[in-house]
Amino acid sequence: MTEFIPPGTRFHALPSPFAMKRGGELQGARLAYETWGRLNATADNAILILTGLSPDAHAASHPDNPEPGWWEGMLGPGKPIDTDHWFVVCVNSLGSCKGSTGPASPMPGTQTPYRLAFPDLSVEDIANAAHTLVDSLGIRRLDTLIGCSMGGMAAIAYLLLHPGSARRHINVSGSPRALPFSIAIRSLQREAIRLDPNWAQGQYSDEVYPESGMRMARKLGVVTYRSALEWSGRFGRIRLDEKRQEEDPFGLEFEVESYLEGHARRFVRRFDPNSYLYLSRSMDWFDVAEYAPGGCDDDQRASAALSSIRLEQAMSIGVETDILFPLQQQEEIADGLRAGGCDARFVPLPSPQGHDAFLVDIERFGAAIGSFLGGR
Amino acid sequence: MTEFIPPGTRFHALPSPFAMKRGGELQGARLAYETWGRLNATADNAILILTGLSPDAHAASHPDNPEPGWWEGMLGPGKPIDTDHWFVVCVNSLGSCKGSTGPASPMPGTQTPYRLAFPDLSVEDIANAAHTLVDSLGIRRLDTLIGCSMGGMAAIAYLLLHPGSARRHINVSGSPRALPFSIAIRSLQREAIRLDPNWAQGQYSDEVYPESGMRMARKLGVVTYRSALEWSGRFGRIRLDEKRQEEDPFGLEFEVESYLEGHARRFVRRFDPNSYLYLSRSMDWFDVAEYAPGGCDDDQRASAALSSIRLEQAMSIGVETDILFPLQQQEEIADGLRAGGCDARFVPLPSPQGHDAFLVDIERFGAAIGSFLGGR
Repeated sequence: MTEFIPPGTRFHALPSPFAMKRGGELQGARLAYETWGRLNATADNAILILTGLSPDAHAASHPDNPEPGWWEGMLGPGKPIDTDHWFVVCVNSLGSCKGSTGPASPMPGTQTPYRLAFPDLSVEDIANAAHTLVDSLGIRRLDTLIGCSMGGMAAIAYLLLHPGSARRHINVSGSPRALPFSIAIRSLQREAIRLDPNWAQGQYSDEVYPESGMRMARKLGVVTYRSALEWSGRFGRIRLDEKRQEEDPFGLEFEVESYLEGHARRFVRRFDPNSYLYLSRSMDWFDVAEYAPGGCDDDQRASAALSSIRLEQAMSIGVETDILFPLQQQEEIADGLRAGGCDARFVPLPSPQGHDAFLVDIERFGAAIGSFLGGR
Repeated sequence: MTEFIPPGTRFHALPSPFAMKRGGELQGARLAYETWGRLNATADNAILILTGLSPDAHAASHPDNPEPGWWEGMLGPGKPIDTDHWFVVCVNSLGSCKGSTGPASPMPGTQTPYRLAFPDLSVEDIANAAHTLVDSLGIRRLDTLIGCSMGGMAAIAYLLLHPGSARRHINVSGSPRALPFSIAIRSLQREAIRLDPNWAQGQYSDEVYPESGMRMARKLGVVTYRSALEWSGRFGRIRLDEKRQEEDPFGLEFEVESYLEGHARRFVRRFDPNSYLYLSRSMDWFDVAEYAPGGCDDDQRASAALSSIRLEQAMSIGVETDILFPLQQQEEIADGLRAGGCDARFVPLPSPQGHDAFLVDIERFGAAIGSFLGGR
């Protein structure tokens, strides 16, 4: 099956075997990553970025790949994450399909993709794999670990599983545990893919591909990545041309439907469906409360686990209009870290763009992140 | 195809032909309805209830059908809508499949269902059909017109198209026009049905029925009918038995997934898929701004239309956690009616149950509705 690897991607060989949290191990697995800026002599200017579900490691342009990246406005010389000062690493998550080993990768010594033979994937595996990369780059301690969305979960796992591995932390629209509304949405997305006859229990090919399932999953994603407020202002009740409506009864009629269709079209066939299922489920499974010290009450476990993390400084940032990783979850992260003695700020932003705001509202997010990092 | 008609349902023959808003007409069509209480001699104690998308006319039990109805706690002797005092009529919407004529009904003089040959259905058609029923019952003016959810749209249409037809109005979790978030959700629900190969361009049968599409549509509905807040408290991260998880990779694992599955199972095969498509689309189309007097600015049209409605008293009620018909829309209705000189109150409730709260939080909704109707 096609892999989707941007030019200029680097690769890091994971220790082999690489043990997975829920059992099983990977042989000869790798991570795709990209870097910006230069690691200084004392190796104390490093920033690691852990991504959301779908991005590759190409967060921003660089000489080996001048194409704009998914966080182009945030990362580069003179930008909020100033690569004239910081050495920045962005990693494609383990289990993804953008160069890192995942369900679409060939099983060792074969041409056959893992598909559903890939072991259960946890957010913790994504974190552990990224930690081996950081280690291999000669970085004993990150200046700042940044995690966005799913990457915000992975960052919490990273800090818990590798104490002392970062001096500071920025959690962007993240969550300390999956809540039932988000689980329900992701469950429906997975069901849409699995219901597509072309999914064929994971045995699809490029020719027979679960396109309608992936389109539905992506559209449902986009609905929850943005916000009703933004869409009311942006689309209102604008209609498409009458002609397009007449082609198909119950076909697209409103601008908002066409917007979803465009998003879906740009996504399908650029992401491996099995990889999507694995990554999606890893988020449902994540619960920081698993790391609570013994003897906690049930409703204290998440907070106790977060407060066991040792950091100098942290910022947990998100937006009011996020329905997928709601703002209270970012507040919970900040509160938990602060209870552990860290100088942790909670930064709620009024961006109307919902969960995706960190990708679009660079003005607000950039100001907060730039200021946290030291205004360079 | 199966129709789903509760026992004790009455029928009203629509004028034939019955002209539809967007063109076409129905011959020999009918409405299913139920009544409670007695119309008094001056015929001024009547209440009409217009329903949401899926309910039948069986809002509450009565001697001909002792089964509890969908608003059992609200309606009956001594209840908030006190049938010892009021004569209450609830109508199954035109286009539905619970006894009223819709896409699953046979075309006149045949055994063949309309399917997609049913003319375009508008919320206004639902309102006009209900008005002919009220008229046939000898009610010149309703004391109170109540519309819930989709029925809140239909009630606004009813009041606009039939001036003077009601003295008072209660709009329950309604909307003066479909906004893009709701349109997007409904569009995905319709797409899920249409993508099911068994839908077959509407030519399914009881044997070959688009069950997976209907299940997906219903689950997505339930996600938007409730609220993240309610689910966090109710389901948290509760898991099903390990055994059920192992049967199917990516199968149900969390309690919230099982809850959605249960809702879907109880819905499919009890609702006609084509009828669902028609009713769903009618909501996308509804926009009170179409009824604005000439010369209004675009952003004043909805308000101007609402203020052209003449009522003595009105209440627009909803909940903070509703993401499908958000509370601002209920406020917009109250503000618009008030601008027309009506004593209109806006009643925001803190119920955690989202859009469905009016069906479940009878304590709060019942108190408000009972008090509005006069505390009987």
